[in-house]
Amino acid sequence: MNNNNFVPQIPYGTRDLLPREAKQKRIVEGALAELFSRWGYAEVVTPTFEYMETLTVGTGSDIQQHVFKFFDKNNRTLALRPDMTTPIARVVATRLKETPLPIRLFYLNNVFRHEQAQAGRQCEFYQAGVELLGAPDPAADAEVVALAVEAMLESGLTNFQISLGQVDFINGLMAESGLSPKYQQKVKYAMVSRDLVGLGELLDQSGLSPAAQELLKQIPVLHGRDEMLNKAYQLTNNELSRTALGNLADIRKLLTAYGVDSYVNFDLGIIRDFDYYTGMVFEGYTPGLGFPLCGGGRYDNMLSAFGVDSPATGFALGIERVLLALERQGISVSVRSKDVYVAWAENKLAEAIATANRCRKEGRQAELSLSAVPKAKAEAAAREQGYEELIYIE
Amino acid sequence: MNNNNFVPQIPYGTRDLLPREAKQKRIVEGALAELFSRWGYAEVVTPTFEYMETLTVGTGSDIQQHVFKFFDKNNRTLALRPDMTTPIARVVATRLKETPLPIRLFYLNNVFRHEQAQAGRQCEFYQAGVELLGAPDPAADAEVVALAVEAMLESGLTNFQISLGQVDFINGLMAESGLSPKYQQKVKYAMVSRDLVGLGELLDQSGLSPAAQELLKQIPVLHGRDEMLNKAYQLTNNELSRTALGNLADIRKLLTAYGVDSYVNFDLGIIRDFDYYTGMVFEGYTPGLGFPLCGGGRYDNMLSAFGVDSPATGFALGIERVLLALERQGISVSVRSKDVYVAWAENKLAEAIATANRCRKEGRQAELSLSAVPKAKAEAAAREQGYEELIYIE
Repeated sequence: MNNNNFVPQIPYGTRDLLPREAKQKRIVEGALAELFSRWGYAEVVTPTFEYMETLTVGTGSDIQQHVFKFFDKNNRTLALRPDMTTPIARVVATRLKETPLPIRLFYLNNVFRHEQAQAGRQCEFYQAGVELLGAPDPAADAEVVALAVEAMLESGLTNFQISLGQVDFINGLMAESGLSPKYQQKVKYAMVSRDLVGLGELLDQSGLSPAAQELLKQIPVLHGRDEMLNKAYQLTNNELSRTALGNLADIRKLLTAYGVDSYVNFDLGIIRDFDYYTGMVFEGYTPGLGFPLCGGGRYDNMLSAFGVDSPATGFALGIERVLLALERQGISVSVRSKDVYVAWAENKLAEAIATANRCRKEGRQAELSLSAVPKAKAEAAAREQGYEELIYIE
Repeated sequence: MNNNNFVPQIPYGTRDLLPREAKQKRIVEGALAELFSRWGYAEVVTPTFEYMETLTVGTGSDIQQHVFKFFDKNNRTLALRPDMTTPIARVVATRLKETPLPIRLFYLNNVFRHEQAQAGRQCEFYQAGVELLGAPDPAADAEVVALAVEAMLESGLTNFQISLGQVDFINGLMAESGLSPKYQQKVKYAMVSRDLVGLGELLDQSGLSPAAQELLKQIPVLHGRDEMLNKAYQLTNNELSRTALGNLADIRKLLTAYGVDSYVNFDLGIIRDFDYYTGMVFEGYTPGLGFPLCGGGRYDNMLSAFGVDSPATGFALGIERVLLALERQGISVSVRSKDVYVAWAENKLAEAIATANRCRKEGRQAELSLSAVPKAKAEAAAREQGYEELIYIE
């Protein structure tokens, strides 16, 4: 029928969500927006891109390698937002500067990473998340972790675990080790990427005492429940690490009050891939998915980079990951079926329109045939497309 | 408290939606998604950016001047989508190629224009829209126009008008005029931008007969109802223009069957700013807003550029423009108030958590204080923040 051979492609690392998946996304996001509101969080929407300087001041200059960059009319560098934490910090530091603390905000939108795409990590993906600003206490961290649990339950998941860590536990051990900051970064990177072999080699070459090496090697395997916290406490001598463990114990007590403690354990090897975290950090996992469903933590210094001193804590949940987990675990998101197909014989379009109008006013979903069709064909079409009812106007 | 003077800025031509506005956006978008579903439309979500070649093949190479461009890992040129019509055509021409026609799709998302920002036109803005693919008849155009009317009603607007035009009416007159294609483009551009003085000058210099000049000058003022269509019919001699007028009369009849004809009049000067339209075009206006709320039309050739022959028609509605019109017209979107503030005396956090949990399970919105506060202070905080009820745990 045509001699054009151009077949358009979808950009590398991106996906189209076709109707079934788009509908599931809308249902899950709607449920999460309701949940976050019930917990006193209010939505904000920020631009899809930020000035690069906002991102580097907020997140650190390493972020430059991982963003899509371009220019505005005045040749200033823009970047597609790699997360929502920095943009929300910008909003709080500017337009919400006078709002009494604490401020509870949520978002439901897309973020972008200029990286190799891989299973569960596209270059563009959707996140639901909250930021709780202006509250320094474990009460705020516990609220955020409890809300992450409720968000996964609200999405339809039942089988998942939150792993809770504390960056100061590792920071204390690192300071105690006396390694150079650069070497510390390498060691941390091996921990973030769970590269135990590389970590071993780094420590072998570190010049640390065998006991100190042994301690750092153990970090990635320090997971468990309260007994593990006690064990870790015995392993450490420095104040920073011990305070971090006390903080986790406090948060854990409050999670019991929230009734979500069965979903939570500790993993002292969790560092997270953004450098802005300063306290409690966590990740949520579900069986059959080799990457976290959600993650977050405390970031008390970001807002001061924007001229406002305010502690902060929050988390983000990956929407596509939730949908993938639901699918792999055979949990269906109840997608409403099609109601009525309105078809018509020659010259009956006006009556068919009136019928479709009436169905829609009653709240039913009604699809109108756009050309006259014989009754048998209408019946076949209604059946094929899964409509519950055919109304045929003749 | 800190000595950092960096004040982050929001990118040129973009806005933050703070809680009140973000909530209104969510309510309006939710209502529109429900409406589109009731009419048999299914949502699709496409990437925020496309390969530049997809946009130029679908929309025309002029679009290059109006998009934000950047590069992927393989150095291919990407652009933030300037509208959703081309991305949806890509999806239909690839992943939905085997789906039986007609296909009804909707979207609710942001688009980007790399231009001077102005009132009602930011560099990033939100659209709700539908595309109806595979149906060539006026029945499809009427459905789309009627759905645009219902979308504005569903958004809460009551006072608006749809102006309906037909690009072939002007195309026929242009062909009849014998002007060069380049000169035709200039004349059209003057019409699109409603530059009547510029249009007059162009026609004066065109070498056309006074009668032909007069006819083209009249186009931008050819608006009205059925009488105007009859008048326009008398003014034209060519088949293309007369067929276009007949098409508008057919669509108008069906809009009466939809019961929305009181919202619709004709404006034969409407051209729209994308070149891909091939038939009926329309724009929706409301008092107090100097730019259209919505617009759309028939674009029968775009999909053939992607290797699939399919007629198509659709429209998009500007979400920010709807919110602005609602505000200017004093129409409030019912935003739910805050329900409960749960505050607590020293050592009562665990009980307060249990109380907040219970409220939320009952579907109430409950905000929990994150530190112990005296009762009087809690009462003041609940009052200030507009909570209906304070529960104080002591």
